[in-house]
Amino acid sequence: MSGRITSLANPTVKAVRALHLRKERDETGLFVAEGLKNVTEGVEQGHAPHILMYGPEAASHPLLKKAVEATRATRGEVIEVTEAILAKVSRRDNPQAVVGVFRQTYRGLDQIDPRTAPCWVALHRVRDPGNLGTIVRTADAAGCGAVILVGECCDPFSVEAVRATMGSIFAVPLVRASEAEFAGWRANWPGSVVGTLLSASVDHRSAAYQKPALILMGNEQQGLPPEMAGLCDVNVKIPMRGRADSLNLAVATGIMIYAAT
Amino acid sequence: MSGRITSLANPTVKAVRALHLRKERDETGLFVAEGLKNVTEGVEQGHAPHILMYGPEAASHPLLKKAVEATRATRGEVIEVTEAILAKVSRRDNPQAVVGVFRQTYRGLDQIDPRTAPCWVALHRVRDPGNLGTIVRTADAAGCGAVILVGECCDPFSVEAVRATMGSIFAVPLVRASEAEFAGWRANWPGSVVGTLLSASVDHRSAAYQKPALILMGNEQQGLPPEMAGLCDVNVKIPMRGRADSLNLAVATGIMIYAAT
Repeated sequence: MSGRITSLANPTVKAVRALHLRKERDETGLFVAEGLKNVTEGVEQGHAPHILMYGPEAASHPLLKKAVEATRATRGEVIEVTEAILAKVSRRDNPQAVVGVFRQTYRGLDQIDPRTAPCWVALHRVRDPGNLGTIVRTADAAGCGAVILVGECCDPFSVEAVRATMGSIFAVPLVRASEAEFAGWRANWPGSVVGTLLSASVDHRSAAYQKPALILMGNEQQGLPPEMAGLCDVNVKIPMRGRADSLNLAVATGIMIYAAT
Repeated sequence: MSGRITSLANPTVKAVRALHLRKERDETGLFVAEGLKNVTEGVEQGHAPHILMYGPEAASHPLLKKAVEATRATRGEVIEVTEAILAKVSRRDNPQAVVGVFRQTYRGLDQIDPRTAPCWVALHRVRDPGNLGTIVRTADAAGCGAVILVGECCDPFSVEAVRATMGSIFAVPLVRASEAEFAGWRANWPGSVVGTLLSASVDHRSAAYQKPALILMGNEQQGLPPEMAGLCDVNVKIPMRGRADSLNLAVATGIMIYAAT
């Protein structure tokens, strides 16, 4: 169906706005991707939007036409809205002219084939959605096989995380696992499992990474706890030479991924 | 002077809140650092707060006492405020219990001694304060000599940038220069000037970095323009192996810094 919507009381507009809440995302299994570039990325990767919302600015864009076709082909809903509605939906003064609602996809640990990529990333209890999204983007750029979320993590499908992925949310497989599941699965990993630890003595560049390398990173506050570090074949540190005692998690993960590949 | 403030109309509270605006920061030469850790970092680096503001939660903390002494020793103002005031000042629901106002410090290109560090960072027209702050933090962790802001950049002393530095704003010298000043000064650089360019053919790890290395990064949207890339001894690329066509700027800068050191 198609139509021009001007009211915040419209049920579709309300449904999309509600996806700012994790509870709503968890219950519906949906998430929001903003911007024609990201929506197009999703469509090209075979994900048709459940809902496609666009403002007057995007109405005549050729890429929008493709997204509209993909949405309609799967009986999704296409609505044209005002810029004011877009600003409310995105909670931004200068909103993107296109918003897509997509289905969240997670894979299981048993769907991972370690031979398909030289480097894999696991994050333990990551907290900051901006960091998580940036790590997904880096994992995509570096050709990593997946990002594995171990334990209770922030939501990779939050609006902030998806923004930081810059479209890579559609390109990188995401896996969820409890600490216990990860520990059991890791026993059969054919390459090196590499932990990053401020207290480690091995420099991140002098360690021998046997491929496929699985990089395990701790969270922003605590780093890797002993029981997680103990699951690794080797723990390494990125040298700190100034006053700062740690790196931003997304930066540290990027350095580790590129050191291992 | 000391006193307990409960009103948003208090002139000191108003002055601190106004520092969210770049215009106000530029005119006063002041900036806000939040949190006892960051304020203490400033004090330990010899920067006494002009204004020190704290809430009831921090009143009895031993580190606060030191910050209060440092502030009073330089005739700064110390005020106790309510948590509601702190929330307004920081624009956050869960504000830090301590806020310090410090003087901005920039150095000139002529104050740089290249022999004092193996790696230096220059950013061309960086736009995102979170990226800039994260890069300052990385530069600190890696022992870089300074971060040089070339051309019109976002403000390293914005609240968002300072937050992202995690206290490194006080540890890393900041330098401002126009494109022309940078071009003239760069001619006498004794080591390699290394540009990062998506279109370069040299891998960032196969290039020979002659120390001191000066890493030059372009901005989030355009990367390095030709006239800036032309100032470099070598341009390198961080390999892209997936669908993502670029890295987050702070991640890319971190990878470059650690590749060069």
